[in-house]
Parts: sequence; C-alpha cells; structure tokens
Amino acid sequence: MRPNNSTKLAFSPLPNRSRARAMQPSSDNANKPQRDFEHVRDSMHSAISMNKTEVIDTVLNDFSEKFLVLGEEAQSAGHEEDGVLGSFYRIERNLRHALKPMYEGLFERLNMHPGGLKVLTSLRADILSILAEENIASLRALDSYLKEKLGTWLSPAALELHQITWDDPASLLEKIVAYEAVHPISNLLDLKRRLGVGRRCFGYLHAAIPGEPLIFIEVALLKNVAQTIQEVLWDDPPIPECEATCALFYSISSTQRGLAGINLGKFLIKRVITLVKRDMPHISTFATISPIPGFIQWLLSKLASQSKLAEVNDISQSSADRSGSAFRENILEPEEEKALMDLSEEFVAGKNGMERMLNLLTSKNHEWSNFAPLLSILKTPLLRLCARYLLQEKKRGKALDSVANFHLQNGAMIERINWMADRSENGLHQSAGIMVNYVYRLENIEEYAQSYFSTGQIHASDDVCRYVEPLNEHQPATDKRG
Amino acid sequence: MRPNNSTKLAFSPLPNRSRARAMQPSSDNANKPQRDFEHVRDSMHSAISMNKTEVIDTVLNDFSEKFLVLGEEAQSAGHEEDGVLGSFYRIERNLRHALKPMYEGLFERLNMHPGGLKVLTSLRADILSILAEENIASLRALDSYLKEKLGTWLSPAALELHQITWDDPASLLEKIVAYEAVHPISNLLDLKRRLGVGRRCFGYLHAAIPGEPLIFIEVALLKNVAQTIQEVLWDDPPIPECEATCALFYSISSTQRGLAGINLGKFLIKRVITLVKRDMPHISTFATISPIPGFIQWLLSKLASQSKLAEVNDISQSSADRSGSAFRENILEPEEEKALMDLSEEFVAGKNGMERMLNLLTSKNHEWSNFAPLLSILKTPLLRLCARYLLQEKKRGKALDSVANFHLQNGAMIERINWMADRSENGLHQSAGIMVNYVYRLENIEEYAQSYFSTGQIHASDDVCRYVEPLNEHQPATDKRG
Repeated sequence: MRPNNSTKLAFSPLPNRSRARAMQPSSDNANKPQRDFEHVRDSMHSAISMNKTEVIDTVLNDFSEKFLVLGEEAQSAGHEEDGVLGSFYRIERNLRHALKPMYEGLFERLNMHPGGLKVLTSLRADILSILAEENIASLRALDSYLKEKLGTWLSPAALELHQITWDDPASLLEKIVAYEAVHPISNLLDLKRRLGVGRRCFGYLHAAIPGEPLIFIEVALLKNVAQTIQEVLWDDPPIPECEATCALFYSISSTQRGLAGINLGKFLIKRVITLVKRDMPHISTFATISPIPGFIQWLLSKLASQSKLAEVNDISQSSADRSGSAFRENILEPEEEKALMDLSEEFVAGKNGMERMLNLLTSKNHEWSNFAPLLSILKTPLLRLCARYLLQEKKRGKALDSVANFHLQNGAMIERINWMADRSENGLHQSAGIMVNYVYRLENIEEYAQSYFSTGQIHASDDVCRYVEPLNEHQPATDKRG
Repeated sequence: MRPNNSTKLAFSPLPNRSRARAMQPSSDNANKPQRDFEHVRDSMHSAISMNKTEVIDTVLNDFSEKFLVLGEEAQSAGHEEDGVLGSFYRIERNLRHALKPMYEGLFERLNMHPGGLKVLTSLRADILSILAEENIASLRALDSYLKEKLGTWLSPAALELHQITWDDPASLLEKIVAYEAVHPISNLLDLKRRLGVGRRCFGYLHAAIPGEPLIFIEVALLKNVAQTIQEVLWDDPPIPECEATCALFYSISSTQRGLAGINLGKFLIKRVITLVKRDMPHISTFATISPIPGFIQWLLSKLASQSKLAEVNDISQSSADRSGSAFRENILEPEEEKALMDLSEEFVAGKNGMERMLNLLTSKNHEWSNFAPLLSILKTPLLRLCARYLLQEKKRGKALDSVANFHLQNGAMIERINWMADRSENGLHQSAGIMVNYVYRLENIEEYAQSYFSTGQIHASDDVCRYVEPLNEHQPATDKRG
C-alpha cells in the first residue's frame, strides 16, 4: 500500500533532463530524496523509451515500487507555466480530438457497455475475414485502430485465471469443446476426462466477456514428460495425482478470432505454474507437448525450391562446379539421399532425394506413415530438419514457428523432439507427426525469456542441439542475426 | 451466440449515407436484408452522434443485437479504395501517433502490467492533490489525458460485482474499514455486523486491481424504510431475513481518490437490486437512506448573501420599495422569521432571521442540536429549504447535490426527507442532520433515468413536493431549465 502522504511530483510532458540535472546539488549524502526522485525519473524514461523487443516488466516493476514509496521529501521540479503553454496544450488536445476517427466514439461507447467488448471482438473477426479476401485501405486502417484499442482494453493484467472444472456451467464448457483447436474434444466423456483426476484446465477470463475464456490451457499430471500426445489423451486410467512429478501443458487454445495478434497469453504459463506449484509442491517438472504448426509448410517449400535448383544445376553445369549456386543446398545428408534414391519407383518417383521426400510427404492420406520401411528412412532426416527449423529458422530475429516463439518468449527451452508423437490427420499434416517438448525450468524462466527477447537466443537441450551440429563438439545453439 | 457465417460489412470511416441511399433498390419486400443493414447502420450513427446527456444504452443494445444477427445476406457496401486513400490513412495515423504525448507510452505499458493500473490511480491522486493547490497547465493536460485513459480501462462493463462477506480475506475487509466514507466503521465488531444477518455488502472489483473494491455499497434488510441512520447502524439484533420486505442502501463509498470524476457506479444499483431480488423475492422495496453532502454549504452561502442584501436594503432604501433588488429574497417564511427574531439575544445574535439562522447553524459543536426549543424552531425552515435544495437547485440542468445526482441518474425518486436522521458530527455538519430516502421502483427505473438524463426532471413523492409548493395544488416538480 502506498503511504498516505501525497507525493509531490510535477510531471512535465516535455523532457527536461538538463534542467533537472542543473538542479542537482553537489553534496551527495544530504540528497537521498533527490537521488530517489532521479532514480524514479530514470526508470520512467526507460519504460517509455525501451523498444518492444526489450523486457520492460522489470523496469515497470522497479518504477512502480519506487514511485509508490517516494516520500514527501521529493521536490517539485519547478515549472515555467503560463497562458501560452496552457493554450498550447489546448490546441494539442483539440488537434488530437479532431484526428479521432468517427468510429472511435462507437468503439469507446461499446467498451463501456455490457456485452460491448464481445461485439467489438466479433466485428474485428468479420473485418479480418474480409481483409483476408481483399486488401481495402480504409478497412485496414479500421482494423489497426480496433486492434490497438482491443489490446489496451483486454490487457493481460486485467485477465483472471480461472480453473475450469466439471462444476462450471455447461455454457462455458461448451465453449471449451467448441474452441479446443489443438486436440479436438470428441465428446462429453472426453471433456470430462480432461477436467477429471490427473488433469487440469485453466482459462483466462475477462469480466466484460463473461462465461467465455479468451484463452485456455490444458494440463496433464504425469510421472514423466510424455513423448506422444496419444498417451496424454488416452492413458486410461490416469495415475494417482500424488504420484505425479510432472505437469504437462498439452494444449493452449485461444477462442476469439477477433483477438488475433493480441498477446493474451502473457503471464498465463507463469501464473499456471505458480498455481499448480502451490497446490502440488511435489510437481517439479513443467513441460509441454507442443505441435510444430509451421514445420511441414516450411519443409515443403524448402524441398521444392532446392530440388528445382538441383535439377537446373544438373542440366546447365558440369558436375565439377555444381557448388557454384550460392542458394543451392542439399538439405539431405548423403546417406539419406542414398536411402531415398534406393527406393523402388513403385513406392515413389523423383529425380533426387529432395523431390522424392517431397512426393512422399504430400502423398494422399499420408501413406508413408503407415509403411514401416518408409518411416524408418524418413525418421532421421525429418527429425534433423525439424530441429533445424526450430533452432535456426527465424523471422525478424525470432523463431519462425509461432508456437516455438510463444514458449521461448515465455522463458522455456527446447528439451526434446519426438517422433510419431501425433498420428492424427492434423499432426501428420503440419509436422509429419513430430511434436516437441518445451520445458520451463523455474530457475531459468526469467533469464531465458530475457535473452530470447533481446538477442533471439534459443535455449535447447544437448540432445536437440546435436541434431543440427552432429560433427562439431556440442555448443548451445545461439543465433544473433536479426 | 453469433452465427458462424461471417458478416460482410465494409465499414467506411467517412460517412457515406448518400451513396448508400442511392444503392437502395425500389422493391421493398425483396430487400429485408438491405433494410436490416440500414437499421444497423442507423443505430450505429445514433450511438456515435448522441450527446452525453442522452441515454445511449438502449441504442447500443439495439446496435449490438442487430449487428450480431446480420446474416451473410447483407451486401458489401462497395468501396472506392486506391493508393491515394491508403497513404491518406497512413498520414492520418502517423499524425495521430505524433500527437501522442510521451507519457502515453508509460501509461499504456503500465496498463498492460500487473499492478500498473493501481500505480496509475495513485499517480492521478497525487496529480489531483497538487492541482488542488496550484493550477498548472501541463499538469492539467496530463490529468485530463490520464482521466480519459483510466475511464476506458476501468469501464463499468469490466467491473465484477462481488458480495463481500466475513469469509473474505482480512486484507480486503481492512480496505472496507479504511474506505467507508459515509458512516465510519468503528471496530471489527461493527464491521462484522455490517456483513452479518440482515445485512449485505457488495463491491465492484476490477481484475487488474485485485483485493480492493473500487466502490462498495452496504445494504440493510428491514421491515420498513428507515427514517434515521441510527436505527440502521444500531438496531441490535436485526430482524430475521425472511421477515424483511425492504432492502435499504445505507452507504456507498468509492475507494480511490485517483478515480474521481470517473463514473464507476453505473449499473451498480441496478445489478445489486437484481441480485437481491433473485435471492430474496419477498423484498419488494428498494430504497436508500442517503446523506445530503452539499446542503449546509449551499444554505450557509445563501443565508450569508441574502442577510447581507437584506441589511444593505434596510439601510439604503425606504421600506416601501425593498423589493427593488432583483436578487433579494427572504428565504424564510414570515412565521419562521418571527420565531427566530423572538429568540432571546442570549441564545443567538443577528439583525434578521437569516443572519440568526446562519449563526445558529455555525455555532460551536452544533449546540443548536442539543436544545429542544431551537430544534423545533429550525425544523420547519430547514426541512423546507432542504427540499428546495434537492428539487430545485441545479448545476448544468442536473441536481446540484452529488448524491442526489447519482441516484436520480440511476432512476430513483426522492421519497422522504427525514429530520434528525444522522446526529453524527459529520451528519450535523453537512446537512443539519437531515437525510433523504431515495426509492427505486423497479417499474419506473428506466423511465425516470431517461427523463432525468434528457430534461433534468426530478421525480419526487407528493410529501416532498409539498414542501416547496405549499400553496399551489400539487404538481410533480419539474425543471426544464439548463
């Protein structure tokens, strides 16, 4: 709680560091209040000027704490106000109001109105689906404005963590069934299991959108970090909760298309970990079994372009200077190439290993996944390429894969890559059935989040790193590009 | 729930009614979708253009409902977008961003940060206390900006109604004790009574400021509408709840100085009534026993200025044309004037009745309230002037008294004015011990709120109206000035 004495701080909207410095007296000891004030002012300036890739939580915490305990000693910074300044502020304000789009009025009034935020969310969902078909400038401007507003109105700090149980209203549980995007819930029994013994489900709720979590996370209490989603979804019966040592996050779904691009999941993992840890101190491992939604899409485009380049090279150049093309790269190892080319044409056609791999992966109904010899040929290159995708493929300096980016920015590390971990249609389609375990080590969460934020560094276990650096001595995969 | 088919609505930020009208086809029957669309568009325009004195809730509800059920039939309104418009929107956006004050960054980041809203609230409390001492233009600009932001972040629609009970954390109950502004809670036993049998306490909580209601309301379950606060605070033991027919709101306190001027109480009374009614259908009367915080302040300044005018008139003018001063008014009735002037000088000095009343009311320790003859002389004029203050004294067309304004805009009516209803130091100081019962009649709430909003009309019982119009036949007090 803040002390009762009111803090005297004349905030000036114009930075006036030089003047404030000039005021600083020479005697250092006698001026602790002045130093405190300067400290608060500096952390305030940091909080304003830091860019979005930096971790401002610590700075904001520091500012908040120090501001609240600033005593009466802090001196007013003095001010040179007069009528001119007064009208300056008035003009600035009027200009700001004149620039408000007409729809701002509607948005603000709906925000104040019961049910209004839900309407705005639906509205944005509609806008997004129109924009997906056609790029309309006015609509894009509207969308960007609405997104900004929704982002401040649905601040993660205003979301409430709620444990969802079988005792919750059916109208809420129905939403869980409808929105579970990762591992669809097949029936009521399936839902009941996910809320029963050995399972937890937590949702982020906002008071203005009642009865409907904006995002929810499903947790399994296990003895070990699961290697496949099948054992999580179908291990009947679950183990007694007192024997569990691991809390496995196996599904995170956001429910509102209209909130796309707004980071609601911030703090979610951290808060769930705190909650689980408090109730069950014997849980020591916090991990996920996560999809890799962008892996196959990335791989197919890589295979297509590289097998095309390889073909062109074969025709136009002597074999002696094949390496001439700077973009060319055989993403397969020689023995993988050989194994694929040794396959009979009746299984798969293709002039090189990459083309054959492409053809196998795009075969109807993922036939390759039902035939043991093909599985064993594809396993090594797919796991290796998946590790490369997760560890090295970046977009603006951050992990290309959206789920990887989510967990890494929350402070997780990549622990293990699992073969045939999700045999569902969707799992085979998006990541050739591969899934990944991210692990949250309580002692490292802050540090990892911070280094990922500032330099894009991805922390991974030795086993995972070995996939991409098989010949060198092991070193943690670090990427400071971007 | 909204239907799955996405609604195609190209919102243009520029009004284009004429074009939309031109598109409207002639056949009326075949174009229900077009009519639906126009209806939604019209209610959208109303919601944007209505001014603050109008009741927009109905319009917003209408817009929301109709918008959510607009089917795919609604036609895209067409658009004439091109590169020029695109760069127009970009320039507009850049200008808007350039006009954002530097502190906006800090405010928005704090809003997103756990605990940040509390810091901003404390910050505004500090700003307000500085502004109370000195009017600084930059600080005023900062305050108005921060107030606007806090208003949208702490929207009433995002507040959660929570019944506060003895089972709540002590840290929360401590806040109730600290913030109870109307009838201070003397000790833990007093608090326990206010949360016990025959009592209710509800608070509005915001997820981002946990454990601290932003506003709370105390309710007593009684057989009749109480006439004094003493019987509410000290009727030991309370009646059995099943015998109660009246829910009496006897205290509403807001807890954050930094949220002054932000209407958090919206919907509060309505939601509490709904809740109480649901749990206890036998409760049929919803009323308040409320302070009149501005009465004595208004009365003293009226008495001072009028007794001065009367004095000047006595000296400078012949008694024949005393009525010449347009501002002059004896706010006392002749028999009241006489009773005051008949008092011995040892009780009170003063050249006329108004000056004597002024001197009595400002006597040390409210001595007048302990002496029966004085009480009986003052009772009639004070009750009459209090009714006048409540019914007729306006500010910008609304009740001058802040508590009256709060209840009237919520749809209450003024039911009864009670003599010696609050004998506490504070009660005598602010309203000469008078309190008022506002009554919420469920069937009239919407209508009364609406007419008060739009015309400033104050609804009052016949008994209360009679105070100010004793000679005319009764008619409801209506005031359309302002």
